[in-house]
Amino acid sequence: MTAPQTTDVITDTVRRYLDAVATGTAAQIAGLYAPDATVEDPVGSAPHRGTEAVTAFYAALENLRRSTELLALRVAGNEAAFHFRVRTEIDGNAHVIEPIDVMTFDDEGRITSMRAFWSAADMRQA
Amino acid sequence: MTAPQTTDVITDTVRRYLDAVATGTAAQIAGLYAPDATVEDPVGSAPHRGTEAVTAFYAALENLRRSTELLALRVAGNEAAFHFRVRTEIDGNAHVIEPIDVMTFDDEGRITSMRAFWSAADMRQA
Repeated sequence: MTAPQTTDVITDTVRRYLDAVATGTAAQIAGLYAPDATVEDPVGSAPHRGTEAVTAFYAALENLRRSTELLALRVAGNEAAFHFRVRTEIDGNAHVIEPIDVMTFDDEGRITSMRAFWSAADMRQA
Repeated sequence: MTAPQTTDVITDTVRRYLDAVATGTAAQIAGLYAPDATVEDPVGSAPHRGTEAVTAFYAALENLRRSTELLALRVAGNEAAFHFRVRTEIDGNAHVIEPIDVMTFDDEGRITSMRAFWSAADMRQA
């Protein structure tokens, strides 16, 4: 049991996460996670666990032009749920998806788990 | 492990839940839950478990004028995350809160758990 983080610490990590998803490398995104963190994206799929697997998961983003926008953030206890927009572009084709992610955090404000709620039906061409 | 529900079944339960929160009795809301379901509202608080505890939890709503509006819903696997607005009115004072809830469902489309992401800072006077 870790000490509860303040809303400010968790909010800051979420904002840095969205910045990194938009402009960072896979390693920079993975650096916001605790070493043994899990990523389940989308919910229902097999989770990726640990820095190496999490970095590999985000590597697919590096070839895309990306932008992110926070739509709504709710922090409760040591966790956060947030609705956000990701716009990706490849070969001139832009796609938009607006998932709802749920994250847990450790006492240093690092992400210990991420679960992304979305399905293929939620993706649309921009 | 229960069979995955279709997105349609889960979407229907979420809509019936928001309708019941707006216009139903506590027993009607609790009737959308499985008998041994848990409600953690807000996240970080002690969960209510079982029909009796869940009904008692929602009883506080019965004295309020209420309305609800679905803002965003994402279904993935056997779970859903949704952002919604609740407007409550008591003695002429209206309050609005827009939580993000996460629910899991059984193979009959009943809610097996609900976790509500919000904090007092998210509540505002309408």
